[in-house]
Order: sequence, then C-alpha cells, then structure tokens
Amino acid sequence: MMIALFTDFGADDIYVGQMKAALLSYAGCDVHLVDALHNVPDYDARAAAHLLAALHGAYPDGTVFLAVVDPGVGSAREPVAVMTQVDGKTQWFVGPDNGLLSVIAARASRAKTFRIAWRPAALSASFHGRDLFAPVAAWLASGEAPADKLEETGALRVQLDAGDLAEIIYVDHYGNALTGMRAAAVADDARLRVAQTEVTRARVFSDVPEGQAFWYVNSIGLVEIAVNRGSATAQLGLRPGHVVEVLA
Amino acid sequence: MMIALFTDFGADDIYVGQMKAALLSYAGCDVHLVDALHNVPDYDARAAAHLLAALHGAYPDGTVFLAVVDPGVGSAREPVAVMTQVDGKTQWFVGPDNGLLSVIAARASRAKTFRIAWRPAALSASFHGRDLFAPVAAWLASGEAPADKLEETGALRVQLDAGDLAEIIYVDHYGNALTGMRAAAVADDARLRVAQTEVTRARVFSDVPEGQAFWYVNSIGLVEIAVNRGSATAQLGLRPGHVVEVLA
Amino acid sequence: MMIALFTDFGADDIYVGQMKAALLSYAGCDVHLVDALHNVPDYDARAAAHLLAALHGAYPDGTVFLAVVDPGVGSAREPVAVMTQVDGKTQWFVGPDNGLLSVIAARASRAKTFRIAWRPAALSASFHGRDLFAPVAAWLASGEAPADKLEETGALRVQLDAGDLAEIIYVDHYGNALTGMRAAAVADDARLRVAQTEVTRARVFSDVPEGQAFWYVNSIGLVEIAVNRGSATAQLGLRPGHVVEVLA
Repeated sequence: MMIALFTDFGADDIYVGQMKAALLSYAGCDVHLVDALHNVPDYDARAAAHLLAALHGAYPDGTVFLAVVDPGVGSAREPVAVMTQVDGKTQWFVGPDNGLLSVIAARASRAKTFRIAWRPAALSASFHGRDLFAPVAAWLASGEAPADKLEETGALRVQLDAGDLAEIIYVDHYGNALTGMRAAAVADDARLRVAQTEVTRARVFSDVPEGQAFWYVNSIGLVEIAVNRGSATAQLGLRPGHVVEVLA
Repeated sequence: MMIALFTDFGADDIYVGQMKAALLSYAGCDVHLVDALHNVPDYDARAAAHLLAALHGAYPDGTVFLAVVDPGVGSAREPVAVMTQVDGKTQWFVGPDNGLLSVIAARASRAKTFRIAWRPAALSASFHGRDLFAPVAAWLASGEAPADKLEETGALRVQLDAGDLAEIIYVDHYGNALTGMRAAAVADDARLRVAQTEVTRARVFSDVPEGQAFWYVNSIGLVEIAVNRGSATAQLGLRPGHVVEVLA
Repeated sequence: MMIALFTDFGADDIYVGQMKAALLSYAGCDVHLVDALHNVPDYDARAAAHLLAALHGAYPDGTVFLAVVDPGVGSAREPVAVMTQVDGKTQWFVGPDNGLLSVIAARASRAKTFRIAWRPAALSASFHGRDLFAPVAAWLASGEAPADKLEETGALRVQLDAGDLAEIIYVDHYGNALTGMRAAAVADDARLRVAQTEVTRARVFSDVPEGQAFWYVNSIGLVEIAVNRGSATAQLGLRPGHVVEVLA
C-alpha cells in the first residue's frame, strides 16, 4: 500500500507536510508515503504529464499517485481519478483534470476515468491537494474505491498530445536534462541537436571522457542529455522548454 | 501517532536524518514522522512562532510537534514541552523555551507547560534536537507522558507578543510571501501596503490575470501576498521581516 | 529495522523516490526509511567516505546504510556489502566498491566484506541504486542475509586512506564547514588555519559573539568551522576541498 506524491509544491515548503498529515489521517497507519517528486517545473502541467508518464513505471503494482500541479485550483477544472493498466500493473492517479493525467491515461493499455463527486466539509480555495485529493488517494490506497464519491466518466476533458515531446522537460540537480522523448523511438546512432549543440549517444556516463556531453537512455526510458562529471545544463545552456531535434 | 518536525535544520542536511533515527529508536515502529517544515528562516524564533501557531491546525488531534529553532542551544535556555487544546484538538509541542512555543501556547484555549527535567546519558553541546527533544517527543507520542521527566511549571519564561505580526514571516519556493497576520482580523476590502506596493484581495490565484499581485487568505488562515503564475517575492522585492500595513 | 539512505542523488530529484519504491517492494512494510543525506558533494566518494564514517554512529544498532555515490556506475567497479562492528553496534553498508565504504570498514573493530553476486532480471545501466543496491539493502534489513547473493571476500578493492582528512568535506545550509578531522585527535587549545584565516575553539555557538568565527567539536565528533548566527562559508570563503592546518 504505497502512495506516491508528485507535485510542484516544492520539497522544502509547508505544503507537503500538510498533505501527508491529511493522507495519514484518512489512510490509517500501514500506508507508505513516497515522495516521487515535488520539484516539477512550477505550474507546468504539460512537462509534468510527460515526466509522470515515464516515471510511474518505476513504482509497483497498486501504487496510488497523488499528482498535483494545479495552477487553476479554485477555478472550474474538475478533480479526477484515473485507473490505468500498463505492463500488467494497475495504478491509480488522483489530481486535477488539466492535462496532467492525460498522457499516462492515453498511453495505458486500459484506463478508466472517474470524476470526483465528493467534497470535504471544509474545502480551502487554494489547497485541494490537502483537502480533496489527499483523502481520495488515501481511500483508494486503502482499497475502498468509494462508489458514491467517484463517478465513472468517459474521458478526461483536457487531453494533451500523448506522443513524444521533443523538449527538455526537467533538469536534475546534477544538471542532466531529461527530454519528453521515449528512447525506444530514437535510433542508437541518432545525433540530437539542442541549443545549437549536437550530441551523440553513449551507454553510460563512465563511457565518455570527463566534461563531454552526450545523450543516453536514462533509467526511466527517456532520452537524456548529460555531461560526464559535469552539468549539461550549465555547459550547454539548457532549460526546460528547449526544443530537441533528432538528426538523421 | 504522528510526530511533526518543525525546524530550521534545512531539509537537505545531515541533521533531520539523525533526529529521525533518534525518534524511531525511542518511539517504536508504528509512529509516523512528518516533515512539517525544516526551512524556517535560520535562527528566527519569532517568525517561526507565528508560522507554527498557524500551521499546527492542519495537523490532527494527538500530533506531537518536535519544534527546534534553537540558536541558543547549549546556553541557559530551558527545554520545555507544552500541551495545548485548540478547537477540540489536543497537541504537544516540544522545544526550547526561547519564544518559539509561546504564541501557540498563548492562543490555545488551554495550555499546560512542562519543564523537561530529564537529561540523556550522552548530551552533545550543540544538537539537543537529536539528543534531548527527540526522545521526549517520542515518549509523548507513545502516550507515556513521563511524570518524572516532565515537571509542570506555571508558564514559559520567554513570551513573545501573541497578537498578529504584521510582517512577512516566510517566503515559499513559488515566491509567495506569508505574513504573520491572521486573515480573520483583516477586512475583505482592505488594501495592504508592503515594500511601496499596494495590493487588494482576491479569492484565489486563478481569479486574477497572470503576473498580477494580490493578497488572499491562504490555506492556514494567514494573509499571504502572491502573484498569479509569478513570484511576489521577486516582483515586489519582498523579504522576511518586511512590514505590512493595512490601509483603511 | 531501519534503512538509512546516503547518496549524492539530491533530496529533491526523481531518484530517491524510485529507490524508496524499490526498497519497500522488497522489504515489506515494517521497515523505516531514513534520509541520512542526499546532498553529498556530487561524485565525491572520498569526502563522502569520511562523512559516512562519522555520521553512522548517530544511527542505531542494526541499521542498514544504502550508500550510493557512484559516478562509475555501469563500469567495472564491483557492488559490495560491508558488515561492521563499532562500539558494540553492528551495521551494514551496501554500495559500490569505489572507496566510499573503505573508511568505515578500516576504522571498525571488525568488518566483513561481501561481493554482491546477485543481479536483477532488469538492470539499468545508470541506476544501480534502485535496481541492485536497494533490493540487497532490503534483504539485509529483513534479516535474510542471502548467502547465494553475497560472497564473502577478503577486502575492498579500492581503499582510501582511513586517517583523518584535514579538509573541508561538507558545507551545511547554515554555512557551517565540516572537516574530515576527528576532534579526538585535535587539542582543545589548537588554532586552525583555513583559507588564510585562523580560528580558535569554542564549546558552542552561543559562547562567542554574533558574527565571530570559531571551531568546535560537532555533534558527530568532527572538527567544524562555524560563525555564530552567520555563515562561515560566506564569511571565510570556504569550499569543500579546502585544506585545514592545525597550528601548534
């Protein structure tokens, strides 16, 4: 029974703790809470959707993702839950219907979408992660799919393009730049161009000299641009949103 | 059985882990540790006292707060524990008697104050969070209020003003600026002046255009200054300690 | 049953969560995961080895450390596990044989070294922390030292000097600078010179005026250079790698 948290709340602010307190209040004490990521680029549901669609595979069967990148909180966007089957694993995703869950839903072998009809007695205007999404995630993790609280619906309202996103979508603290491109679709001998630089593929960091830039298939199956013992971001001037071109 | 950690130790340093190891050694394995905040402005017990007095309400009945903002560690300041009742919830707060716990104690419907008489066999000079406060918090969370270790006393020695603090007390990673003013005391149509800028109230971020500054009632009941999809801190030049004026 | 995580993965990236998901998948649900540190200076196995050798003492008997600072991942370096006895406590350390575990192993009263012979069905080229080290740490924490998976071997291949390291090895968020020197070997009246500044010893922060630099015996037994209510790093221009001299 694992709940994975995926937000742009920042790992070091006051928000994650409050959400965990809410989760534990509803879920009982045998749940494990795992911080998948709280440093999604702020407000960027599109980059987040592609990152989540790659990252979820590293989490086990039965994981419930509490996924909140929600700049429209308090507006008309709907709260939703999506159940997916991918590679024989069933997982749940709880969050706003703003595109965030649409890439994983579109790519899953099977997906069921539910509108969250339930509302808590006290709902703040700005923190539905704590007041609304956390209780629902806790119920789902407890195995009580609450029929009166979730209404199955045909599909998400906001659907992003679920194809590969040929952009930088996330930069880690080493300065590695993750793209939204699944590596399976890119030939091993492809050269990539990003920010006026061309890079070729290496298997792993230690296969290239220190300071050299390269691309490789990262551990969640995405094309990633890196520098051995250095920062690709600093050295090549990369930022989220930069376009990546595949050269023949 | 939840212990919430509230410190200026930094979320990413070596201190929080050691404190958790101590908590788990004393508390047994069915406790949940939640990081409420480790990025309190360094050494600032006054800002921290006001933030804690607003934040604790998001945590459930029975929560034990291990609250350590303790620049005077190793000096004569006393270690204390405070039991509070607020809105029908009983919570404990363990930390130094330097003002940090005085705002929550003064605002509670009922509060009892205890001096911690117990000392561990090995007490480092600089890390009472790990060696002294953590074991006491663990015992309290286990329900063993240890009578020989805690001596009830009349009141805290260091008492800060428990009224609203019309200052910026915390800046989050989005750049939102939290004040020490409870929103219940501020009229909805009030204009606020901070750092030569005036802002009016909005209900929620998505109610104002992108890039516009406003104030709103945040999810822990404080007046907060924000910019929709932007950083109020950067845009208005705000920092902790800046004074906030309420205009009629 | 505690697993302590010690890496240079960054506390706020996508890596720690994936490693925890793997740990929990293998370890069952009564394990406690504690983040000892994820901000080891990137790729710096030598500084990390000295920090780990001081830090482990703050963790209880039976702790399994999952220690990954592994710039050579995917190269020929071996995965290993080390069991140590220090001060009557038995602990395990799982990680790469690149020097990281060699200082604790050399300083322990007793140490046994094992080569990890087991390989997972799916092993990524770049994330052995998740795919290989985490399952082994989980088994060890569960008390199932798996004889067919670990082969006892004479010693680690890469052995760093296990004596004191007279350098800055870590800088915390306050700006305190930890050295790799055990305080037991430094006289109380010694003056230290670092980056053209000399400092004398104080017992604790509050014993010196605000803004004054000093050295003290920190809570894990290392010599540390600090400024009361200030940043030694900023004020004295300190960085990891700077040499510290002991003056007579």
